[in-house]
Amino acid sequence: MKQTSVVYPGTFDPVTNGHSDLIERAACLFDRVIVGVAENAGKNPAFTLAERVELLQETLGSLSNVEIRPFSGLLIHFVRSQGARVVLRGLRAVSDFEYEVQLAGMNRRLDPNLETLFLTPAEQFTFISSSLVREIAVLGGDVSSFVHPRVRAALRKRFG
Amino acid sequence: MKQTSVVYPGTFDPVTNGHSDLIERAACLFDRVIVGVAENAGKNPAFTLAERVELLQETLGSLSNVEIRPFSGLLIHFVRSQGARVVLRGLRAVSDFEYEVQLAGMNRRLDPNLETLFLTPAEQFTFISSSLVREIAVLGGDVSSFVHPRVRAALRKRFG
Amino acid sequence: MKQTSVVYPGTFDPVTNGHSDLIERAACLFDRVIVGVAENAGKNPAFTLAERVELLQETLGSLSNVEIRPFSGLLIHFVRSQGARVVLRGLRAVSDFEYEVQLAGMNRRLDPNLETLFLTPAEQFTFISSSLVREIAVLGGDVSSFVHPRVRAALRKRFG
Amino acid sequence: MKQTSVVYPGTFDPVTNGHSDLIERAACLFDRVIVGVAENAGKNPAFTLAERVELLQETLGSLSNVEIRPFSGLLIHFVRSQGARVVLRGLRAVSDFEYEVQLAGMNRRLDPNLETLFLTPAEQFTFISSSLVREIAVLGGDVSSFVHPRVRAALRKRFG
Amino acid sequence: MKQTSVVYPGTFDPVTNGHSDLIERAACLFDRVIVGVAENAGKNPAFTLAERVELLQETLGSLSNVEIRPFSGLLIHFVRSQGARVVLRGLRAVSDFEYEVQLAGMNRRLDPNLETLFLTPAEQFTFISSSLVREIAVLGGDVSSFVHPRVRAALRKRFG
Amino acid sequence: MKQTSVVYPGTFDPVTNGHSDLIERAACLFDRVIVGVAENAGKNPAFTLAERVELLQETLGSLSNVEIRPFSGLLIHFVRSQGARVVLRGLRAVSDFEYEVQLAGMNRRLDPNLETLFLTPAEQFTFISSSLVREIAVLGGDVSSFVHPRVRAALRKRFG
Repeated sequence: MKQTSVVYPGTFDPVTNGHSDLIERAACLFDRVIVGVAENAGKNPAFTLAERVELLQETLGSLSNVEIRPFSGLLIHFVRSQGARVVLRGLRAVSDFEYEVQLAGMNRRLDPNLETLFLTPAEQFTFISSSLVREIAVLGGDVSSFVHPRVRAALRKRFG
Repeated sequence: MKQTSVVYPGTFDPVTNGHSDLIERAACLFDRVIVGVAENAGKNPAFTLAERVELLQETLGSLSNVEIRPFSGLLIHFVRSQGARVVLRGLRAVSDFEYEVQLAGMNRRLDPNLETLFLTPAEQFTFISSSLVREIAVLGGDVSSFVHPRVRAALRKRFG
Repeated sequence: MKQTSVVYPGTFDPVTNGHSDLIERAACLFDRVIVGVAENAGKNPAFTLAERVELLQETLGSLSNVEIRPFSGLLIHFVRSQGARVVLRGLRAVSDFEYEVQLAGMNRRLDPNLETLFLTPAEQFTFISSSLVREIAVLGGDVSSFVHPRVRAALRKRFG
Repeated sequence: MKQTSVVYPGTFDPVTNGHSDLIERAACLFDRVIVGVAENAGKNPAFTLAERVELLQETLGSLSNVEIRPFSGLLIHFVRSQGARVVLRGLRAVSDFEYEVQLAGMNRRLDPNLETLFLTPAEQFTFISSSLVREIAVLGGDVSSFVHPRVRAALRKRFG
Repeated sequence: MKQTSVVYPGTFDPVTNGHSDLIERAACLFDRVIVGVAENAGKNPAFTLAERVELLQETLGSLSNVEIRPFSGLLIHFVRSQGARVVLRGLRAVSDFEYEVQLAGMNRRLDPNLETLFLTPAEQFTFISSSLVREIAVLGGDVSSFVHPRVRAALRKRFG
Repeated sequence: MKQTSVVYPGTFDPVTNGHSDLIERAACLFDRVIVGVAENAGKNPAFTLAERVELLQETLGSLSNVEIRPFSGLLIHFVRSQGARVVLRGLRAVSDFEYEVQLAGMNRRLDPNLETLFLTPAEQFTFISSSLVREIAVLGGDVSSFVHPRVRAALRKRFG
């Protein structure tokens, strides 16, 4: 039998209920799910890498076959370093789709052994994105139906 | 360890190199790949169900963890009957994406345990579709770079 | 104050919970909602025009400012005959969007006074379409979460 | 009879003929059109909030049922503060559509009473955007067929 | 200097003002424009091949470097038979784009020397399609702003 | 016979194999291909204008009917200054398509004599973009299958 490890990469700035839904589904399907938290220093994230990892831990730490790991550098190197060859990505919208297909094509060229699998979130999560959640939090809106209570608290502390 | 069976459904009228590429990739990732050949009597296919199954057998029969099975009725019933809960679909274009997401949503409603995973074909197969292959064959064009030699022979026999 | 009448046209073959959701929202926003049931003889619908109108009546008849009316001929003529100048359409997917914009452009050319307003369905209805509902019913699937009980009964009677 | 107030929000940096076309159409359909000018301090707009409001006033001030109002904070709070429950948005392209549907879904979650209606601009305005207009002005191009003469003068003053 | 011949293929059932606009633009850009009228017997067109060619002649016959020619069989064979290697296609919408890119990819595989160039119609023609024109004509609508007077007459004769 | 000059504009930060493929195809189709390198000072490019021009020269300088020219200001002014009236653009994805159509519409308004022709890259180049190439280079990945050796050397020098 095959042991299947998948890497679910992202910035998670911060983790939303949409991400959690996907990770929970993946944890049911695969032996091991490695959530790869990209440093993304260039994008000037709202939360530090350590904070983003911690919020993921608090949200999903109880799932026994899920590991939260920060990474910098190329995704293909991180995937290999984890002994994996499958990348998992979420697809919500057409614009996601195009970018993801482009990325998957690039990654396949960089490492022909790498495969990218796509999963769609539950319908109630299709319109949630980290950037919209941050925007609502900045403007003082209620994000409680989009993120975990710990993330909501962190957003409040961050944006006041 | 999880034993993962995936069902890759389609009409396969006829199987193209794009389908084969996806099935071969899937066979590397999952323990068992069940290729579900939909009867689709309503769509008036060019090849009979038996012919479509046979062409798939001839093209992919050598892969030990791939099974070719015809089915009629609802996909979710077929998936359950195979002891599986994962559907695999290929994504080539934006229009595929929308239809597939709609289908995946419907199927998730009909059976909340069902998951749909998506895979993209290798770049050289993104523009191949069974309907374009049939059209070229009808007009007497050369389909040898799009399908297996046995499929080409079958198309020639069928369309003269 | 303006009295606003909107025409919501469609084939409704059959009416789904997605249509009902849109009509209920429209009934809250506008003074009068005329549901225009297109004959569409050319498309060979599963239900007769009379049956489609009746299923809409049974589903939505209790809304006091909603009227169900069959029509044949050009939409712009029907809209004018109802003393209206606004067409309401639902938008679920990108492919809907393009077709709808094309139609709206054509109709604006045919009658510059006509406006088309678009509304999106609630997230849980984005993947429901009449054609998928019919397909599930034909294959013996359970459509109870997609349509009104009366529509389900009609589908069962129609497709056995 | 229902009194219908709609809020048409945007940055209007600056207002284009495409915006004006939409506002004029809306003014014919609804009792009251509130043009909500978002502060958007984060996006570093080319014109100040006061300038953007003034250019809208000069362009559309003569329409009796149109009000131009600046706002900061969440759109749903602004809509409520105006005694309205309908947001109006323009749709030009598929990429607009996806973002708008995402926003409409988020807003519906934040306030289930809120509805978003979409309108398409006249065909000759589909390719006009504030950002392209600014870009042309920066490069010394002629924007007279895209914006009101007062806006053109303001762009010239701003970008020299 | 290169002599550039382009083939503009289609069903032209019937030719619309959108097609004419594209052909006129092409006639200004290229030395020779061959309008290839596909037989498309399988699609059961409203007008015969001879009628479609004739309507194109009446609409565009005065352009000295435009030739109207019927063809059956594969497009690549027709292009070669005309001593050309460039196919010209119109792009109106995203759905066009995807299908056209798929076709261009297929054709490039069948004949690596073949190139496909795309042109967009003038904005006022983006929403015109032969199928919508036929639909309006069938329902007794006025098509005079979408087609040449001769085409309108032919539609009236055909659909009564 | 018409002498056809086309302008292929871009930032080329840096030139990729996808750009080269398009330029080579264009050089076969048209008498003169002017590669217009936009200054784009506002976008803060990774390479200076002079460096981008030089990398293009080193990659494509051997093509006799291709000229590499920097430009600032409006594209339509540059096109006219070259005695050309045709702009050539590449189309890879739906999101490209929409932006390009918007640009082409704007440019047609600014100069009704200007035409934009679109070409699609070979399938193996559809997923290459300058921004993804830069991102891979920044992270220390191998870009040798996406760019010319001289460009790879320049990226290594630039990003270390």
